[in-house]
Amino acid sequence: MEKIPVGVLGATGTVGQRFLQLLEEHPWFDVVMVAASDRSAGRKLGEIGRWHLSGAMPERYAAMTVQSIDQIGDIPLVFSALPGDVAGETEIAWAKAGSIVCSNASAHRRDPLVPLLVPEVNPDHIGLLELQRKERGWSGGILTNPNCTTTHAILPMRALHDTYGLSQVLLVSMQAISGAGYPGVPSLDIIDNVVPYIGGEEDKVEWEPRKLLGLFRDGVFIEADIAISAHCNRVAVIDAHTECLSIKFAHPPQSVDEITATLREFRALPQALELPSAPPEPILVTEAVDGPQPRRDRDVANGMATIVGRVRPCPILDYKLVLLGHNTIRGAAGGSLLNAELLAAQGHIPGFAALRDL
Amino acid sequence: MEKIPVGVLGATGTVGQRFLQLLEEHPWFDVVMVAASDRSAGRKLGEIGRWHLSGAMPERYAAMTVQSIDQIGDIPLVFSALPGDVAGETEIAWAKAGSIVCSNASAHRRDPLVPLLVPEVNPDHIGLLELQRKERGWSGGILTNPNCTTTHAILPMRALHDTYGLSQVLLVSMQAISGAGYPGVPSLDIIDNVVPYIGGEEDKVEWEPRKLLGLFRDGVFIEADIAISAHCNRVAVIDAHTECLSIKFAHPPQSVDEITATLREFRALPQALELPSAPPEPILVTEAVDGPQPRRDRDVANGMATIVGRVRPCPILDYKLVLLGHNTIRGAAGGSLLNAELLAAQGHIPGFAALRDL
Amino acid sequence: MEKIPVGVLGATGTVGQRFLQLLEEHPWFDVVMVAASDRSAGRKLGEIGRWHLSGAMPERYAAMTVQSIDQIGDIPLVFSALPGDVAGETEIAWAKAGSIVCSNASAHRRDPLVPLLVPEVNPDHIGLLELQRKERGWSGGILTNPNCTTTHAILPMRALHDTYGLSQVLLVSMQAISGAGYPGVPSLDIIDNVVPYIGGEEDKVEWEPRKLLGLFRDGVFIEADIAISAHCNRVAVIDAHTECLSIKFAHPPQSVDEITATLREFRALPQALELPSAPPEPILVTEAVDGPQPRRDRDVANGMATIVGRVRPCPILDYKLVLLGHNTIRGAAGGSLLNAELLAAQGHIPGFAALRDL
Amino acid sequence: MEKIPVGVLGATGTVGQRFLQLLEEHPWFDVVMVAASDRSAGRKLGEIGRWHLSGAMPERYAAMTVQSIDQIGDIPLVFSALPGDVAGETEIAWAKAGSIVCSNASAHRRDPLVPLLVPEVNPDHIGLLELQRKERGWSGGILTNPNCTTTHAILPMRALHDTYGLSQVLLVSMQAISGAGYPGVPSLDIIDNVVPYIGGEEDKVEWEPRKLLGLFRDGVFIEADIAISAHCNRVAVIDAHTECLSIKFAHPPQSVDEITATLREFRALPQALELPSAPPEPILVTEAVDGPQPRRDRDVANGMATIVGRVRPCPILDYKLVLLGHNTIRGAAGGSLLNAELLAAQGHIPGFAALRDL
Repeated sequence: MEKIPVGVLGATGTVGQRFLQLLEEHPWFDVVMVAASDRSAGRKLGEIGRWHLSGAMPERYAAMTVQSIDQIGDIPLVFSALPGDVAGETEIAWAKAGSIVCSNASAHRRDPLVPLLVPEVNPDHIGLLELQRKERGWSGGILTNPNCTTTHAILPMRALHDTYGLSQVLLVSMQAISGAGYPGVPSLDIIDNVVPYIGGEEDKVEWEPRKLLGLFRDGVFIEADIAISAHCNRVAVIDAHTECLSIKFAHPPQSVDEITATLREFRALPQALELPSAPPEPILVTEAVDGPQPRRDRDVANGMATIVGRVRPCPILDYKLVLLGHNTIRGAAGGSLLNAELLAAQGHIPGFAALRDL
Repeated sequence: MEKIPVGVLGATGTVGQRFLQLLEEHPWFDVVMVAASDRSAGRKLGEIGRWHLSGAMPERYAAMTVQSIDQIGDIPLVFSALPGDVAGETEIAWAKAGSIVCSNASAHRRDPLVPLLVPEVNPDHIGLLELQRKERGWSGGILTNPNCTTTHAILPMRALHDTYGLSQVLLVSMQAISGAGYPGVPSLDIIDNVVPYIGGEEDKVEWEPRKLLGLFRDGVFIEADIAISAHCNRVAVIDAHTECLSIKFAHPPQSVDEITATLREFRALPQALELPSAPPEPILVTEAVDGPQPRRDRDVANGMATIVGRVRPCPILDYKLVLLGHNTIRGAAGGSLLNAELLAAQGHIPGFAALRDL
Repeated sequence: MEKIPVGVLGATGTVGQRFLQLLEEHPWFDVVMVAASDRSAGRKLGEIGRWHLSGAMPERYAAMTVQSIDQIGDIPLVFSALPGDVAGETEIAWAKAGSIVCSNASAHRRDPLVPLLVPEVNPDHIGLLELQRKERGWSGGILTNPNCTTTHAILPMRALHDTYGLSQVLLVSMQAISGAGYPGVPSLDIIDNVVPYIGGEEDKVEWEPRKLLGLFRDGVFIEADIAISAHCNRVAVIDAHTECLSIKFAHPPQSVDEITATLREFRALPQALELPSAPPEPILVTEAVDGPQPRRDRDVANGMATIVGRVRPCPILDYKLVLLGHNTIRGAAGGSLLNAELLAAQGHIPGFAALRDL
Repeated sequence: MEKIPVGVLGATGTVGQRFLQLLEEHPWFDVVMVAASDRSAGRKLGEIGRWHLSGAMPERYAAMTVQSIDQIGDIPLVFSALPGDVAGETEIAWAKAGSIVCSNASAHRRDPLVPLLVPEVNPDHIGLLELQRKERGWSGGILTNPNCTTTHAILPMRALHDTYGLSQVLLVSMQAISGAGYPGVPSLDIIDNVVPYIGGEEDKVEWEPRKLLGLFRDGVFIEADIAISAHCNRVAVIDAHTECLSIKFAHPPQSVDEITATLREFRALPQALELPSAPPEPILVTEAVDGPQPRRDRDVANGMATIVGRVRPCPILDYKLVLLGHNTIRGAAGGSLLNAELLAAQGHIPGFAALRDL
């Protein structure tokens, strides 16, 4: 099988590096281009900054020459790990030129014509891509994944919404420092400390699930009517966000066991299609009395699942629970990658036939 | 003025040491006795374990000989930093023998005849001491302060309850490791990690405020009818708990500014009496967009106030905010000490006249 | 090929768990027995304590019933992760009964008849096993690996000693908390702190290299005449020890480049035999100006190599450098495992023929 | 007594803030001017950045208007917390205009006419100021304190050099993150990590003691002939550097007790003059088997003393020990302040008579 050539925009940052790591031995995609700001363009990737992941930068990447993100190329699929302020214009330029841009940036998430996609949650929203092309006249297209905190929560929210109807979700996050990139959070801000604020984060978490769980039918989009309240905190954890949720349902489940079973049994399109990066079980429920925990559980299922624990009644809303996800894998690069795999499986990458069928 | 002689039960633990530190130059109280388990009895305090606070153990304490907690003495006021399983029996023995026991332990908090006291919140509950003496036939008495997480939250809860009537409080804590004593939390459990569970803590936080804000009139006690839901987490912070609250009111305030003003203007009996350890302002409201923060704010007001920040509307309940308190000062030893100061001011210490009057 | 059945003594501790992890898919060894103290005996391994490594305990282990370490069985190869005070007697009992005990404990390291083995360093010391059997009358035998701090340093020490003759080594370690087991280091001792002392560690580090680099010829053992001085510190790192060395040579190399080349070119018997756990290059030299670093480099070469960096002249001794190793892999369970692989390769496991030959 | 008006250059950084904190209630000095880069000039200090120390910025400082560091004023004494690249020119401009500049920056430390001063160590080097004025034609002058790591070590080095003659000092530091300023060390670089490199630090530590312990007589300066080798590491500690030293003497002491006594008995000019910030005992020796430790000992003696522990024989050099100092107090702002106090005591501040005499 011929692999689909892909590029990574923002390849020198922490999310960009995670893209490269996850793509290193990918069965469908082949990294043929790495791009960054003009400052880095023309240099070898291995000579720019440091590799933030475990071990050394893979040699094939270290030898690649970085091109400018403004040097638009002819690449069918591009991953974007660009910072928010740069992503807006640049991603449009690539989409115009014919690339499908799978973006981890927030710039276009609120665009009503841009799918905010989690393959287990709203695969039908891919249909927006067609409207997007028509309306905007782009030959490619832009597709985004949600904020990391939203991503981990949305898997159980989907499972529970389908069965019981979500009406209110109160969410308090304890987020890892890697979410802020590099250099990111100064150590003087976080060692022996908690920062009870992350700029813009609460807005995203309170809104994105309404789009993700919204209905897209006959070209019309209706946001889900769920009230969400978020408190977002930064804590001294390297990777993985921990989130405490209290949830109110339209039709509350009868018991903790019922919820647990519903979460465990949840499967969706990526599992049916056996997408390469899809976790066999999107939601894992731990029995540990004091779990899930970031350092101990973040690498389970290669960082692609949400781990839920401590499901119990809530004295105010109906139930409460703790969940955890790997913020730079499923919550960022891995989420974008799974989106791209779904697009490739279904034949949405220009010039490449559908790779998987049901 | 003759100082009131006091003893410290459990003087070798982390809370016991904090009692000693706070009592070192106390204007009213003089530490004449330090007690611990039989294992330590007979040895010099300075030879047992290490001093967990900054600097070295004060020399006057280091030279004191530890006595057994079971060697009941004739001391009018005793502070208890005993572990829960030992506190029950021992505190009763001292109360029977005539001591007023100001306890930080949880053993007697649920006893309907034992005041659970925060001087700014429910000073009238001291009246239970008289019923306790009558009913139990003790010549002394037992009085407790709440769990640390409750203590920090109860100050703003009191201020807001008085004005707007609390109906629901959803609280998520990020608690410091010092709350678990020494050796306490293993480092392998908490570095690069969060533990989303603290044994027994959520029960305490969901119940204690109902007692604290309850009514005691004409010998009858009525719990406050407030629904509380708690998620308690341990994070890698040395001292100070951070708590995210969402609150629903019977008569909601009109604006964030109104709540802020209500919190800032709150004063109570300890401030009126100018008790030695009372913070001039029990509730401080920070303007910092990303505050309060444990390392930066815990020592404000000598660790005796609650610091509130980020008051804002909640999309589910009415308002949300972040608060912070020093868990081993106001949340433990300092809380007990303030209780004892109120007792001394009002003449409740056997053999000593009231020290302060309004 | 029939796998060699092996047991793990002390299977419930952190080193025991690391043994289980490394043995999970081992090509030569098959875990058939897990043993712990009487307190755990009879229970399923999955029900005892928690799994301290990433993810969940592998299911095949969770289902195994723990037996008492005193229930001596007929197992040709046993790994010991026992605590020092228990290891002494227990390991002897197993050796008497015919097992080869590859021990990570310190109990027998100073026994002149017990090999202290690092396969790249002193494979000929295995010859002591025969003397041990004769002298002690055991049908099995005991063989140890050194302390973790020694283990990481001894690889470059061997390479340099062979070429330039070591005369003095001054070593300052910054050691990970996992080296102290679980619960191990209290978090109050190590967050925002350094503990400049680890009981017994400096003695081990100052002596063990003298045995490891000693000569064993014609049944006579002569310790190496190298002066070693160690300062051992505990720091807030989960895994991997960092060590600063200053070194004086009998015949100093001419340049940093020469040392670097000597270290990089070092290969030994495990590499020649291609033992399953042997790192292809036992010593890696990083070019990073600020490396090696524990979190970034500990998983290189599966945690089995020593990473060296910052080789430079020392104004007092001849040269200085920084080195790093994974303390619970190569420095503990992985070290023992490599020892066992060498024994198996050479036919030292009772009842099993040599597996590898040169 | 009329206080000496002082200014702080670089008042918005972490060291600048520490100057402000230490000067807040100073008996001799009164902060009348705060200066920073043009970017901050004209704004209120309280509106720029955050206060990195405990609690809130003192109100009197918050209300001060920041002036540009290039707006040279008529202030007799100026403290400089400027970054190295700015300090060079700016400090000269102030010195030319008549100010005595007590600088914490490294820019002028190697200038043979600029005293590198620690009042307990080389108070006679102040004599260089006169040569400096003559040679350079400045009406004021520049005087520096050493690097933080040097500062903590130089107190015991002075005490021991006087008695036994230092010949070699091998020093390995574990340095706090606050030494790198703010934002300084990224949290991704230091949580669960050690960085075995600090740019330029080892050079400073290997050279500065030679100047500090050098002889200045009859206008001639002779560097001390001591070989120093440094390994400098960054660890996850907020404040206080820990340093492991191995030392060789010309005339070695007979015992650990002798060294300990020498260190404890050390007193110098600041103690004789009872300078306001001078620690009564410049060197404290802890008996703790595992001390000194940064979090537990850094605030002893208000952060102005060096704490020594674990004095013991070294198998390579003569003795080894651990020492600790507060890097942003004695190691930075407090060191500069003590220098200024000595100058003021001796009448070196233009327009002000000597404040203290022996």
